[in-house]
Amino acid sequence: MIINGQPYRTVWMDDEAIKTIDQTLLPGRFEIVSLHDHHEVARSIESMIIRGAPAIGAMGAYGLAQAVSQLDRGDLDEIESLKQFFHATRPTAYDLTHALNTVFDKIAREADLPAMQQAAIKAAEAYADQSVEACRKIGELGNQLIRDGAVILTHCNAGALATVDYGTALAVVRVAHYEGKNITVYVDETRPRLQGAKLTAWELSQESIKHLIIADNAAGYYMQKGEIDIVITGADRIAANGDAANKIGTYEKAVLARANDVPFYIAAPISTIDFRCDSGEHIPIEERDESEVLIIDGKRIAPMDSRARNPAFDITPAEYIEGIITEKGIFKPAEIKLLASGNV
Amino acid sequence: MIINGQPYRTVWMDDEAIKTIDQTLLPGRFEIVSLHDHHEVARSIESMIIRGAPAIGAMGAYGLAQAVSQLDRGDLDEIESLKQFFHATRPTAYDLTHALNTVFDKIAREADLPAMQQAAIKAAEAYADQSVEACRKIGELGNQLIRDGAVILTHCNAGALATVDYGTALAVVRVAHYEGKNITVYVDETRPRLQGAKLTAWELSQESIKHLIIADNAAGYYMQKGEIDIVITGADRIAANGDAANKIGTYEKAVLARANDVPFYIAAPISTIDFRCDSGEHIPIEERDESEVLIIDGKRIAPMDSRARNPAFDITPAEYIEGIITEKGIFKPAEIKLLASGNV
Repeated sequence: MIINGQPYRTVWMDDEAIKTIDQTLLPGRFEIVSLHDHHEVARSIESMIIRGAPAIGAMGAYGLAQAVSQLDRGDLDEIESLKQFFHATRPTAYDLTHALNTVFDKIAREADLPAMQQAAIKAAEAYADQSVEACRKIGELGNQLIRDGAVILTHCNAGALATVDYGTALAVVRVAHYEGKNITVYVDETRPRLQGAKLTAWELSQESIKHLIIADNAAGYYMQKGEIDIVITGADRIAANGDAANKIGTYEKAVLARANDVPFYIAAPISTIDFRCDSGEHIPIEERDESEVLIIDGKRIAPMDSRARNPAFDITPAEYIEGIITEKGIFKPAEIKLLASGNV
Repeated sequence: MIINGQPYRTVWMDDEAIKTIDQTLLPGRFEIVSLHDHHEVARSIESMIIRGAPAIGAMGAYGLAQAVSQLDRGDLDEIESLKQFFHATRPTAYDLTHALNTVFDKIAREADLPAMQQAAIKAAEAYADQSVEACRKIGELGNQLIRDGAVILTHCNAGALATVDYGTALAVVRVAHYEGKNITVYVDETRPRLQGAKLTAWELSQESIKHLIIADNAAGYYMQKGEIDIVITGADRIAANGDAANKIGTYEKAVLARANDVPFYIAAPISTIDFRCDSGEHIPIEERDESEVLIIDGKRIAPMDSRARNPAFDITPAEYIEGIITEKGIFKPAEIKLLASGNV
């Protein structure tokens, strides 16, 4: 992605430190943080310095590689513990599981510590590169769905910041924009954490892509008025039947899209698909602290004795999803299980 | 309503001043403001010191009465101009039109200024009293829909603060609570102005009624999980065919309620029904300043060069409305036109 005119990835390795953009400070401040051990890496995921399923996956890959590079003996049980440690940071994003398993499997093939360490770093870098390539391909394929002049609604941030680069939903937006299509993005602000207003708007603003921020409440209004051509969001985990977990409120947009005959698409790399999970009801939904609802930017908006509930994700049933845009093609939800065999 | 243990109305006349609770300061600060002329009254409506269709109606009634009391001659053209002046403050709330016409008609029957002034004050007081009585009755009738243990979702603030007293949706909640039913209210925070988190939660908190604030995005999630028994909102204007304009996002909740077989009700006095308006498409929708989306409590959340759109209301088509709870009974949307004749 382009930030202040320079190309950036969301997460990368720089010598022994893992570098990432602190997303909790955007759009007010652009700051790169350095993470030096597995505690700092875990905290960066838990505190949402980095967020977005593919980005969390890459951070997990780098985090495991860094942690292994700091070991003084090649004990697979210890490495397995580290994997579990990272895995526990956030429960819903499947890319994290996928990334940790990918790096772990490469390590487990090696016999001694130096070989393990070398394999871990190589696997993490390869994971990040493949993630970038998958997103680029998602953008190219999804672009076929976008007509010149299209108005695209997106929810939360499925952008470069949510991945290693390009994004998923925003990869589609980027490619359409780079090809000269005159598009407008309606950006759901995405309470409670406002990733739409803060992160998606910032990414689009950095690349001068036309966008308008709306309250989450207004998405249905614009669909009802016929002003939205297509809805595209990312996903945090997709079950084998095509049910998709994504940021809270995604389900609302999908139901509204159906009621107004607006096609609703999920854009996600295959690493987001949990083929061992039969349906959405088995996807764990993280409930985050009520303070994210009760307090905005340090100021309490609600009465002192009021309480809140704060589920971070919801499940959009496959029936509401027109298609899933992956790096291997655009599939109907019922078709994605074919991807498990690797035959597609 | 009970505030700090004392009974209050939202708006009342105290000698020559109109008094109202400054709703822009809640829940942080409880403050009564005094309005001394028609400019201050208009500003109180425009700046949302007072909001909610029935409350705006009562403010309009008192405002016109106060303005007439300050005239030095009984010129009906001038009084008509004052009526239009108040009417222009906010376009969607029908109660304002209704209240201004009610008071104006009483004035127009009188021959001289002192009689006009006396009639105006009497009409405004009667309007407020009738509004309170209508809301009390809405509460009683709506209470029949609430089972012991019910979980009720509401959007925005359709409480005592949005009326003269009791509220509409919250009148139902109040009566159920006063009768000892163990109810829980899920309160949509209602971006962009957060009337749910700020006002509804505060009213419920003042009367110790169990409630939980949720992001607007989470309402669908809880309906999908089967945790919501009934959705009740207010309305700003109801067309003769039963289409209802209400706070932006209401349409989203209605569509989600239908998708999840949760009954969706509107609670509103008959003064909210615009019998001369055939359908929702003729209801004017106010678009408010983009700063309400871009800035929260004085702090900009979005990038400096991002823009926003901010429709204040949306239209819920009659087909999504299970019933309209009025002071004269609970009606199917198709039945409300019968109320125009006054035969019900």
